[in-house]
Amino acid sequence: MSPQNPDALPHTAADSVGLVEPQVHHFDTPLELECGRTLPTYDLIYETYGTLNSDASNAVLICHALSGHHHAAGYHRADDKRPGWWDTCIGPGKVIDTNRFFVVSLNNLGGCHGSTGPASINPESGQPWGPDFPMMTVKDWVNSQARLADVLGIQRWAAVIGGSMGGMQALQWSIDYPERLSHAVVIAAAPKLSAQNIAFNEVARQSILTDPNFYGGRYYLHDTYPRQGLILARMVGHITYLSDDAMRMKFGRDLRAGRFHFGFDVEFQVESYLRHQGEVFSRNFDANTYLLMTKALDYFDPAREFDHSLEQALSKPTCNFLVMSFTSDWRFAPERSREIVNGLVHAGRNVSYAEIDTPKGHDAFLLDIPEYIKLFGAYMHRVANETENKSQAVEAAPHA
Amino acid sequence: MSPQNPDALPHTAADSVGLVEPQVHHFDTPLELECGRTLPTYDLIYETYGTLNSDASNAVLICHALSGHHHAAGYHRADDKRPGWWDTCIGPGKVIDTNRFFVVSLNNLGGCHGSTGPASINPESGQPWGPDFPMMTVKDWVNSQARLADVLGIQRWAAVIGGSMGGMQALQWSIDYPERLSHAVVIAAAPKLSAQNIAFNEVARQSILTDPNFYGGRYYLHDTYPRQGLILARMVGHITYLSDDAMRMKFGRDLRAGRFHFGFDVEFQVESYLRHQGEVFSRNFDANTYLLMTKALDYFDPAREFDHSLEQALSKPTCNFLVMSFTSDWRFAPERSREIVNGLVHAGRNVSYAEIDTPKGHDAFLLDIPEYIKLFGAYMHRVANETENKSQAVEAAPHA
Repeated sequence: MSPQNPDALPHTAADSVGLVEPQVHHFDTPLELECGRTLPTYDLIYETYGTLNSDASNAVLICHALSGHHHAAGYHRADDKRPGWWDTCIGPGKVIDTNRFFVVSLNNLGGCHGSTGPASINPESGQPWGPDFPMMTVKDWVNSQARLADVLGIQRWAAVIGGSMGGMQALQWSIDYPERLSHAVVIAAAPKLSAQNIAFNEVARQSILTDPNFYGGRYYLHDTYPRQGLILARMVGHITYLSDDAMRMKFGRDLRAGRFHFGFDVEFQVESYLRHQGEVFSRNFDANTYLLMTKALDYFDPAREFDHSLEQALSKPTCNFLVMSFTSDWRFAPERSREIVNGLVHAGRNVSYAEIDTPKGHDAFLLDIPEYIKLFGAYMHRVANETENKSQAVEAAPHA
Repeated sequence: MSPQNPDALPHTAADSVGLVEPQVHHFDTPLELECGRTLPTYDLIYETYGTLNSDASNAVLICHALSGHHHAAGYHRADDKRPGWWDTCIGPGKVIDTNRFFVVSLNNLGGCHGSTGPASINPESGQPWGPDFPMMTVKDWVNSQARLADVLGIQRWAAVIGGSMGGMQALQWSIDYPERLSHAVVIAAAPKLSAQNIAFNEVARQSILTDPNFYGGRYYLHDTYPRQGLILARMVGHITYLSDDAMRMKFGRDLRAGRFHFGFDVEFQVESYLRHQGEVFSRNFDANTYLLMTKALDYFDPAREFDHSLEQALSKPTCNFLVMSFTSDWRFAPERSREIVNGLVHAGRNVSYAEIDTPKGHDAFLLDIPEYIKLFGAYMHRVANETENKSQAVEAAPHA
């Protein structure tokens, strides 16, 4: 097949949601935030894949991780080289089957991909919010997502799904809006960050905050951005996304030039890879958003409201749970997922738990790992069946 | 006891080596380096504790880690608040018993505590060496240490001992100068760095190299130094020195102000601790030395010269080995020490291996951990006995 053959374009593949277009909803009801401040008005950008059924019972919400956004599946343009970030799992016949589900994926508040965030204009000053943008928490995001659900006419999600920081949102949903979801899928997450997790976030933040081009967060006005700070932040982050084994398999001690050159230029392949990852990220991500997202992670601790009892917090949900972790994930290790599972079991919830054996580290939740895809797919298949059976029952019922 | 009581001063304690004074030896025979360059002249600063016996058979060499130096035990001044970095293990009656051993501890070439390094004056230019200082390797250090041994009249060390990067030097000694040591003690080390180890070093280096006050390594001429870069480098490093558990026990999620303040100032105790550690380090360590030491770590790979066969490399040593690791060390995990042990066993060497169960992480090698101290002490006791028996045998032998 020649590359000119339109059949060869990935967006036309049978299991792709194809070309998608983001939508923006403007909210003008003020949103009260956990930090005590209020966001007077805001936009949320989102994408949807699949079709909402007549009783709006087949909707699933996708929550994104630290550097994620609303573009989870498909392509924006026919010549896009890469699809949305979770295209592995979302599409016709895929794990989150768009032939059966209506999938909603949004960019969180504070983000830098179209939802209101630090780079947006603060209506009070007419300038970008910058450091004046209020601090966000996972709870705030869930509240804003509930409003988006209202707008879309979705009273109850068939499932709220997320990996890493996305899994934390799914968990918070189950606690704060128990009546509004049937399933929560919590992947590679933790019930709160450890001191080590916070420490890595703090290194990333200090890299950005001390970059001379940060200008106290008002770099937009200086027509620059804290490039080096973002590069360093991403380099540190990236190391925590990969396992030691994954790095060994990917790079080992391979030398870029085949021999030592005894200087500070790139010597090992892994150095080159990290610098490149940092560089690309720095061009595509807003520094203030990165700061804000890492703080939201640090603050996440649903047990806090319940006298630091995770079990008490987890007595609120009424949905069923799928919790998944990856053996080589050292950012949010399987032990951390098991804390969630134990809490849910103690609280008497239905929970399926899978610990996937893989050397791929934290990033595994984004990857095409057969055992993961199979288990996740089987669970979502059950969710879809449940949803469709209920829908049919409603349709078949005589009108009251 | 009142603090004025001189008996209360720590340097007068019975198990302290007391007040010590560093010595400097100037070498004017050029040293050929692995990078292909030559250091025409250089100084090594060192300290000694205990007394060299008549046949110079009771000398042990202490090799330091990344941020270490020659001041391993005792006090420089009566009012010093803290002793040398390994005072836990070195002193009268301690693990490395200065009543029995003559202990030599030096600052490595390229260091910033008195041995010739990037901050020293380059005799050719009359300016600080800065980035023109040649790149050092563990092999180079061992060669320079062998010359120091010559100066001190030590033909054969009773033991060469080190933790982390120091353990790598002990291992390299055993390969390069097999006839010049009887024992090698290799603690919390690895036969080479993993891709993840290199990745963390690279983040530290990039922090320093991209600090606007680095001036291409010539910051001495600008009367400044890359303070922020050093702080970040040390913060990253410090995370890898502690285990996740150690951090949890030390800080948990304790808040400095008792509640969230929703800003970028210190929120969690661990943030405060890391910033403080970075800050103190930045005032006391030369950035070019830090760069150089991390590169020496990256380059370390004794198997490289032996067709990448560690077993072949380890067929060179003739000494006995004590290898120790710590269960919670994830910088150089027990698996890495076991690679050394397996190599030695295959090569038919005598090796004692101890895996110490502790949550203290990589830093454990510096700490007073009873099981560690006991095992290490028992081994050194045996080394001292051996040395003294041999000495007596020599003295008792009739003159030829």
